[in-house]
Amino acid sequence: MHQNLPDLPSGPLDVYRKKASFNWKEMATFLEGEEIIAFKKHVFSVLENDPIFARQPGEDLSLEKMREMTFRRCKQLFRYDLITREEAMQNPWKTTALNDCLGMYDWSLAAKYSLNKWMFGGTVLNSGSSRHEKFVQDIENMITFGCFALTELSHGSNTRAMRTTATYEPETQEFVINSPDFEAAKFWVGNLGKTATHAVVFAQLFTPDGRCHGLHSFVIQVRDPKTLLATPGVMVGDIGKKLGQNGLDNGFVLFHNVRIPRENLLNKTGDVTPDGRYVTPFKDPSKRFGASLGALSGGRASITRMAVINLKLALTVALRFSATRRQFGPTDDQEIPVLEYQLQQWRLIPYLAAVYALDHFSKSLFKNFVEFQIGLMMKDNSERQAELGREIHAISCSSKPLASWTAQRGIQECREACGGHGYLAISRLGDIRSDSDPNLTYEGDNNVLLQQTSNYLLSWVSIKHQEKRRIESPVQSVDFLEGFNSILQDRFTAASEEDCMDSAVPLAAYKWLVCFLLKESHTKLAQEKSLGLGDFEARNNSQVYFCRSLALAYVEHTVLQRFHDFTRDAETPLSLRPVLQRLAALYGLWSLVNHMGTLYQGGYLSGKQSADFIQNAILKLCAQLKDDAVALVDVMAPPDFILNSPLGRADGELYKNLWSTVLQGNGVLERPSWWSEFCTDKPVVGSLRPKL
Amino acid sequence: MHQNLPDLPSGPLDVYRKKASFNWKEMATFLEGEEIIAFKKHVFSVLENDPIFARQPGEDLSLEKMREMTFRRCKQLFRYDLITREEAMQNPWKTTALNDCLGMYDWSLAAKYSLNKWMFGGTVLNSGSSRHEKFVQDIENMITFGCFALTELSHGSNTRAMRTTATYEPETQEFVINSPDFEAAKFWVGNLGKTATHAVVFAQLFTPDGRCHGLHSFVIQVRDPKTLLATPGVMVGDIGKKLGQNGLDNGFVLFHNVRIPRENLLNKTGDVTPDGRYVTPFKDPSKRFGASLGALSGGRASITRMAVINLKLALTVALRFSATRRQFGPTDDQEIPVLEYQLQQWRLIPYLAAVYALDHFSKSLFKNFVEFQIGLMMKDNSERQAELGREIHAISCSSKPLASWTAQRGIQECREACGGHGYLAISRLGDIRSDSDPNLTYEGDNNVLLQQTSNYLLSWVSIKHQEKRRIESPVQSVDFLEGFNSILQDRFTAASEEDCMDSAVPLAAYKWLVCFLLKESHTKLAQEKSLGLGDFEARNNSQVYFCRSLALAYVEHTVLQRFHDFTRDAETPLSLRPVLQRLAALYGLWSLVNHMGTLYQGGYLSGKQSADFIQNAILKLCAQLKDDAVALVDVMAPPDFILNSPLGRADGELYKNLWSTVLQGNGVLERPSWWSEFCTDKPVVGSLRPKL
Repeated sequence: MHQNLPDLPSGPLDVYRKKASFNWKEMATFLEGEEIIAFKKHVFSVLENDPIFARQPGEDLSLEKMREMTFRRCKQLFRYDLITREEAMQNPWKTTALNDCLGMYDWSLAAKYSLNKWMFGGTVLNSGSSRHEKFVQDIENMITFGCFALTELSHGSNTRAMRTTATYEPETQEFVINSPDFEAAKFWVGNLGKTATHAVVFAQLFTPDGRCHGLHSFVIQVRDPKTLLATPGVMVGDIGKKLGQNGLDNGFVLFHNVRIPRENLLNKTGDVTPDGRYVTPFKDPSKRFGASLGALSGGRASITRMAVINLKLALTVALRFSATRRQFGPTDDQEIPVLEYQLQQWRLIPYLAAVYALDHFSKSLFKNFVEFQIGLMMKDNSERQAELGREIHAISCSSKPLASWTAQRGIQECREACGGHGYLAISRLGDIRSDSDPNLTYEGDNNVLLQQTSNYLLSWVSIKHQEKRRIESPVQSVDFLEGFNSILQDRFTAASEEDCMDSAVPLAAYKWLVCFLLKESHTKLAQEKSLGLGDFEARNNSQVYFCRSLALAYVEHTVLQRFHDFTRDAETPLSLRPVLQRLAALYGLWSLVNHMGTLYQGGYLSGKQSADFIQNAILKLCAQLKDDAVALVDVMAPPDFILNSPLGRADGELYKNLWSTVLQGNGVLERPSWWSEFCTDKPVVGSLRPKL
Repeated sequence: MHQNLPDLPSGPLDVYRKKASFNWKEMATFLEGEEIIAFKKHVFSVLENDPIFARQPGEDLSLEKMREMTFRRCKQLFRYDLITREEAMQNPWKTTALNDCLGMYDWSLAAKYSLNKWMFGGTVLNSGSSRHEKFVQDIENMITFGCFALTELSHGSNTRAMRTTATYEPETQEFVINSPDFEAAKFWVGNLGKTATHAVVFAQLFTPDGRCHGLHSFVIQVRDPKTLLATPGVMVGDIGKKLGQNGLDNGFVLFHNVRIPRENLLNKTGDVTPDGRYVTPFKDPSKRFGASLGALSGGRASITRMAVINLKLALTVALRFSATRRQFGPTDDQEIPVLEYQLQQWRLIPYLAAVYALDHFSKSLFKNFVEFQIGLMMKDNSERQAELGREIHAISCSSKPLASWTAQRGIQECREACGGHGYLAISRLGDIRSDSDPNLTYEGDNNVLLQQTSNYLLSWVSIKHQEKRRIESPVQSVDFLEGFNSILQDRFTAASEEDCMDSAVPLAAYKWLVCFLLKESHTKLAQEKSLGLGDFEARNNSQVYFCRSLALAYVEHTVLQRFHDFTRDAETPLSLRPVLQRLAALYGLWSLVNHMGTLYQGGYLSGKQSADFIQNAILKLCAQLKDDAVALVDVMAPPDFILNSPLGRADGELYKNLWSTVLQGNGVLERPSWWSEFCTDKPVVGSLRPKL
């Protein structure tokens, strides 16, 4: 039993561990399952036991060195081949678990590995055909190295505006690739800065008749795999240092009449015949669009997960710190752990609840996505499959913003909750924050993505009104909207704070909230249009109030609904239900508080007491959960080597670990190499002061 | 006229500049005055024209190098002696203006300079006596270099719990300094890592009779100025890399029987006679406490200002970017600047309003502080002077949190608003965020500081009830509380969104809000105490609801009140009032929205329309201000060299600047030094995979 979950070292955290209301090993096993726990343990051990993955306390690496190390580590992963294609097929979640583990260690490495394998390899597999198998084989053996080039210097969100061109020439049976100017340089491409030899490049496809057939993807060699020098006509380089993830080399590329064989077009959705005619298997362009929508959701589902992982890391650091850092107390000689302060609980424990809710959600979204992928592979042409694509698109376009913002804010709160020590690089909170930060803007800027979700929800209003169809969707995230009119009549009825300490209370409030925001958004849009505005302007003017809030409330409702159901599921052990139910209630209430103004505005809440109940319930739940907080962290914490933060080690020896890590740094006690600069060359004060 | 404000280069920003409702040079001159504008221009030119301050695009410096450069630059500042002591006395604001300029260039440099000059030098001057002048003279000539050592590894907020000891020995007339163990190491001390030779060290003073007289400060030499090697008995070192400000060397020190002359005690508030008796000029310890409270406010007032400066930098980048970045549009071939989107306006323009409000506030707080300092110098023993100290303490303990959090969130929003390009290190948004981050936790953790403010406000309730005194304070920040009962009867009365577009509306709401939160906090505290809880627990349990919100609402009210008055002041030019009044209204409404739940909860707002009006007014104000946004940024932007961000240059040539900065980086087009590692040493996939 639990042989893959070793006991944690005894120390200052024991006090809290003993107070926990549940067994952390039972929780971990229930949430992850023996197979995944064993797999993660294996991956973590591989990293810890191989010196190539070793880290130096307080290390200060140059960009060049960070990239070299990340590359060498990436290569080592090929040798370990931690997950074979068969294993991934047999248990697809293992791919995510591997990415979780690598990300917990270092997101640059995880990104470098998966950009080559999934973004290049996966795209070639999914968008190409048998003629492209060689490309995939080569990157899997690291003969070549791949990247995925979509965004340009002047265009990110507006993908249709990409300006790179691919013009077909029947005489040579080649495409000629061009970047019209530097603003159309492919930019931000991960792996392209220093290492990629091949790129999947998105370009506007032109046939010899001068017609443009829109954006298509092509495999283009950008560097010689024998020398890593750029191929002729290709100007490729490194975009330089970033706020984080600096082990990953992001790059740019400009094409000047670069010729590639006709076959390099990834031809699943459209092809060009040798004589230059454009052919496509899709009769209905909207179906082609639906399929691609769903496929893009994979990236966003994966970012949702990455955000959860980052928040787990940060909370491990901050909560173990809070349980061992003592400051002030009822008397001068009796200081108490800062976790005992209501304020500290209120700052951190809701994020702990959020990470449990979002962790569960990210798993369930993954299952939805796998179902959709299977449909794609089976060439399921049903209406349900198309609907599933739209729904997953709407969910992932809002879950990525929700999870990434929650993580970003939570990490920041963790950093602040650790005070000055959280500002030490060795705390790792800075790297976690910086590495998590791009999740907010890549694969679609959060604010832009939310519009996709609100558009989806608003479309249901039209479907209902015009087609008189029942509101129901494959994974049921909108089914409750069928009760729209009656839900809008609902009111908050809890009669005490105890009443509120149940996730059913915020859940009901969320149903009302989504309906209210949907109504308001619909009305606002109609108003704007009635003023004569076009669709573009009308939508823009309806984003703040309330399309944006609508999308967020919808996904918060979805996350809460799924977690709520989970805590009451027959398969959830009775011993774990109380703590999980508290987490669900806290997550729901705490999220809901952000909408308090709207709940009053729309009349769902009224009077002073309702808010009092909710606020007191939050504090009470925090207080109930604080003795479980350390154990809840133990469930999700990676081994110390992976976490790599002296503030968050499992033994809880905060100051010993911090102090020894500081002393293990480079030249800590040495005078600086430029000491004589201080000692001999003294300034003459004011000697350079201009004579006025 | 305006000869110190050169015209800005023509370019893509002209469109917006022409639409501005005011003249940016007139605004700058009105806000700063000719003298400060000329001084800032001088400082900026000095930095730009001296190669020692030059920066390399995309530079990637080691910690050691960053520190060396910062040190060399700091030394160069001694040679320029940009502000003499006489100039500082004649116009004290110049000291702040200098710090603003240096901080805009690089906070590490500003910190290194001022930690030596103000934190070491200033403390010695203020807490010492004539026998300590030599120490100040030496650091001013850079014979020695100073730092300020208060916090210890295991204690920050709880200063009284510091454990370093200074025991007086009459035989040798020396103090013996000891660190009982490594948890009592002085830790986080700026300048101590590599460069300080002398430190002001806070230690518990023991007289030979074994009595402890509490925390006192001592000047202790920690390194030999001739060699930069540690003095005997001193273990001094570098705490390593931080999340930001890495040009500054923060350090630690442990003392083992270090002997210092009796005279090194800074003896303003207490001294030890040669034979070992403790003597103090203060009869009333609470007055000593009041004086020191006020003096500590200087640091927090200065951080309030630093936060404002950081937000100015970030907004300059994000708003110039938003005015030149085009994405999507009403038709496919007509893309519009992202600043035209309501959502982008709503994300950024309220922060622009906040920075104007907080900028004005930080200046007015500085004036309050100067008044207080003059009182100290004049040895003003009046009740008013003591009250002023308490009030400034309460204001600065909440303005530092408000300003630093507003800056942190604003910078993050700016980074996201610039999309991927905001994640490039050359955008500078990462450095701005990281360098601003410690403002949240040093000189008192924000959340801990807010308790000082709420305690102050709650004390007025007792004063009123028990002493029947009128509520009034030297700078009038609490005077309105005298109308407590009648204010609590007030209700929101605006009858349209136009009505709301006046700062008087949020101002009235804030007065109600502070009264309501004060009442609730007082009631809650009383409740907790009636349950038998001690003062410590009762206060802890009242922080979240609502002591913390109370402190924030109070300072938001103060900031808004001052800005509101300013926009209507007779001296404010009529030509500038409309835009300033819009900024004031927007800042007020936008801040107020965070309290919307409470406003409904307490009955100040009711019904749906009130919130509708406020929300629509915010959007309208954003729309009105968006054509002024670029000019409002021009008023506060430093020269391009100082801003150091290709996204925010004054010419608005976004892509040209970005592209050329990327290309100017090091080895951008070169293959990596480790290229052969890629090309020859290929991995055998799975060769290290364990046989299972």
